Amino acid sequence: MSRAAVIEPVLLVHGGAGVRRQDIDAGSEDEIRGALAQALRQGHALLQAGHGALDAVTAAVVVLEDSPHFNAGRGAVFTHDGRNEMDAAVMDGATLRAGAVANLEHVRNPVLLARAVMEHSPHVMLAGAGAETFAREHGIALADPDYFRTELRWRQWQEALRREASGSNEDTPGGDRFGTVGAVALDVHGHLAAATSTGGMTGKRWNRIGDSAVIGAGTYADSHCAVSGTGWGEFYIRTAAAHAICMRVAHMRQSVHDAAERVIRGEIPELGGSGGAIALAADGTFAMPFNTAGMFRGRMGADGVPHVAIWKDEP
Amino acid sequence: MSRAAVIEPVLLVHGGAGVRRQDIDAGSEDEIRGALAQALRQGHALLQAGHGALDAVTAAVVVLEDSPHFNAGRGAVFTHDGRNEMDAAVMDGATLRAGAVANLEHVRNPVLLARAVMEHSPHVMLAGAGAETFAREHGIALADPDYFRTELRWRQWQEALRREASGSNEDTPGGDRFGTVGAVALDVHGHLAAATSTGGMTGKRWNRIGDSAVIGAGTYADSHCAVSGTGWGEFYIRTAAAHAICMRVAHMRQSVHDAAERVIRGEIPELGGSGGAIALAADGTFAMPFNTAGMFRGRMGADGVPHVAIWKDEP
Repeated sequence: MSRAAVIEPVLLVHGGAGVRRQDIDAGSEDEIRGALAQALRQGHALLQAGHGALDAVTAAVVVLEDSPHFNAGRGAVFTHDGRNEMDAAVMDGATLRAGAVANLEHVRNPVLLARAVMEHSPHVMLAGAGAETFAREHGIALADPDYFRTELRWRQWQEALRREASGSNEDTPGGDRFGTVGAVALDVHGHLAAATSTGGMTGKRWNRIGDSAVIGAGTYADSHCAVSGTGWGEFYIRTAAAHAICMRVAHMRQSVHDAAERVIRGEIPELGGSGGAIALAADGTFAMPFNTAGMFRGRMGADGVPHVAIWKDEP
Repeated sequence: MSRAAVIEPVLLVHGGAGVRRQDIDAGSEDEIRGALAQALRQGHALLQAGHGALDAVTAAVVVLEDSPHFNAGRGAVFTHDGRNEMDAAVMDGATLRAGAVANLEHVRNPVLLARAVMEHSPHVMLAGAGAETFAREHGIALADPDYFRTELRWRQWQEALRREASGSNEDTPGGDRFGTVGAVALDVHGHLAAATSTGGMTGKRWNRIGDSAVIGAGTYADSHCAVSGTGWGEFYIRTAAAHAICMRVAHMRQSVHDAAERVIRGEIPELGGSGGAIALAADGTFAMPFNTAGMFRGRMGADGVPHVAIWKDEP
């Protein structure tokens, strides 16, 4: 009883599910793996220095938002009418405090605004112009819409419009429905946190809000478990996917592996959805299931080495 | 095994928790009880005629949205800057399909738009101007902002501004944080549905979205259980209250009474929140817990009589 448990901090990140080998060239793949490793190093260094899980997931997600390779922040996909509209959320497992923002067009790092909402407003979820007013009042960095316009996403949008005009129902090549980024962390105090950020689906309409900003759907953390999802968001909302995984871990005594498998590779595909998630338990066990060809993902733990993977056959 | 189970349809409604005896006069109380009874009769008649649970909860919520006495539709409270901004959601337990809308200013019956989003869009959740564009495209009735301006809510807003100016942290008299409406139903096919509609909190800012429109927080239904919540929404989001109740019923084999008690009178007040919920299981058992002085509520089942109650000591 006198032994002080030494908790090894752990950080997991994802950069979206749904990618296929034909979608990315070798140069992009290297840059993507580099960005995931950089996000892991940045967040894990904070954990090693004794910072909280919330600081680590925020820092890791900022790195991924700043990369043009992921559908979040800088690399956000285009809406049906050619805008970039971003959602994000954070949740602190120790206190169940949460912040979520949706329909942002001018916020450079949506995850930083989600965190400010959690810490400096009486509300959990803000949207649109109101959320951006809050951002200005709290000194959150804004960006011109041009900042979010990348060549890849612009081409995907044009392609989506062409397919719509020709009546095709095919999926957009390049997994443009996916690419959401997220992180979950366990800190030296044994506390968990989760963060998710996204540009949503290419061609989305009517100020659609996806699962990333819906606490319980794409993002959840409590004292037992933290989850960040990435996939076809509507199915994550309908199954309350992140909360369902955490309920299974916290109250049904399932391993985080079994809990995440059941929801991500059971409930969601049974309804017709697809995607993945990263899930981390308070004992440091974790799972990174996905039901697509690939998922950008990474982990950094006791060995202090960033482990990055994309395809199914990678460890 | 040859016996065809006869399922008695059940409908529950609520018109918000948080009301205190000193907040309403006898005339208002009569009108409120009358509106709850009317909502029950309207929805239950559909169930008796063999319509689905989704039709019943939609019809019941429309009656409550049309009454000026509840904080939803017509009687919505005012935001900090003097607007009415409404959220709503519906969920069909049999299919896990859901629709949610937020930050509406011109939609006469937000619940009808939530249902249209579920039935006629590829998305689950729409907000603000985009949601209203979708409403126009789908023939959903709009209303001028004047329609939502009631004397009671205007006075509550003025009072809230005065208290803010004087630095008071007191709760607004009249339970203006509450008054959300909702319904859950079990139809003759054994299917469940839930619907919730609200004007949110008086004085809310920055396009705040509350729990009513967050699937899993204020609204959830699956094949075992349907829940509609009413209370201080931020706590319902943080605990994913409606989904937590349904997970306990569906996967932890708790009675709907125990599940709802644990979340509404356990988890939420432990975090500092308050409110109530209506919860209905597929076997027709139900619970209507609240941790406030009163909750506008009602039930109609096999006896075909609307049972309406407000205070704790009523059956």
